[in-house]
Amino acid sequence: MENVANKKNGVNVDQLVDTIEAVKNDPEVADFRFRAKTEWLGGGHSRTTFKNFYGAKQEDSSRSKPIVMEGDEPPVLLGNNWGANAVEAVLHALGSCLSVGFVYNAAARDISVKSLEFELEGKMDLHAFLGLSEKSRPGYEHISVKYRVEANAPKEELKELCDYVQKTSPVLDMLRNPVKVDVEMI
Amino acid sequence: MENVANKKNGVNVDQLVDTIEAVKNDPEVADFRFRAKTEWLGGGHSRTTFKNFYGAKQEDSSRSKPIVMEGDEPPVLLGNNWGANAVEAVLHALGSCLSVGFVYNAAARDISVKSLEFELEGKMDLHAFLGLSEKSRPGYEHISVKYRVEANAPKEELKELCDYVQKTSPVLDMLRNPVKVDVEMI
Repeated sequence: MENVANKKNGVNVDQLVDTIEAVKNDPEVADFRFRAKTEWLGGGHSRTTFKNFYGAKQEDSSRSKPIVMEGDEPPVLLGNNWGANAVEAVLHALGSCLSVGFVYNAAARDISVKSLEFELEGKMDLHAFLGLSEKSRPGYEHISVKYRVEANAPKEELKELCDYVQKTSPVLDMLRNPVKVDVEMI
Repeated sequence: MENVANKKNGVNVDQLVDTIEAVKNDPEVADFRFRAKTEWLGGGHSRTTFKNFYGAKQEDSSRSKPIVMEGDEPPVLLGNNWGANAVEAVLHALGSCLSVGFVYNAAARDISVKSLEFELEGKMDLHAFLGLSEKSRPGYEHISVKYRVEANAPKEELKELCDYVQKTSPVLDMLRNPVKVDVEMI
């Protein structure tokens, strides 16, 4: 049976502490490799599946069936709205990353979060994607994130927590700083 | 009725040409603002919804109901696998972006794509996310993308097409180059 007592914000704080200790004792525990396969389905439509990954020194097979994400464009960008498009998916990745970071770190600090939401907006210019200009960049020029939180801590403490979360957020890091990406035909 | 004759790879080539012409005639047509809202649901679980966005000089309301993406962590990272996690979602965003870019540009070049798939892997070190080291970065150190394509063009031409797609891919640009992200409490 689940021990309810050691949970905060739905996060198992004992497991969180154990994970941190395990990494301190053996840095290799922290090495993860996440994997995905994206298949083109026609036009702007694609489907990504996620199953196993490597982490905590072993292959993880906790997913009995694959997790699926669909991507598509809206009609104005020649698609059929079968899914959010790729740059919208980036907003989801960022929102979910900040959500996890905020709530896990709140749990570690014994802050109870009642509600948390993020409104995200990305501004982009399609010229580069359409091959019409090398002056503008293909991706978002700017992303704005606004968050609302209800928790049992003063506003200043929650802001400080969010500042910390921003420093440690994997997706925010990948947006704010360059990532090495290799693309190869097989 | 849909005119099948002007489609290539499921892409309406006439609409693609019209879009490019519209942007050439009025650069503001290329200004887009995509939006998302991420709500925390408990523990590592969050839900992002997408509905309207701004583009082609108007609010787009083609989505009669919101598009939804779920995010969660696997049990080893204190979640319940209700969805892919945030860094996996980045792999989806990248795969779907390259898929759209490849297929749309193939259509514009009159190349018929029969199949296309991407295998993506991101390597990360959890030390920074766990607050245990400022030496490693929070995000992926490296992303590897391998793609397989069947199309009626020589391998070299498909590689050249993929090189072009990489230069114009919004998500790849956002990974390889820094993006300005503002985070604000409201």
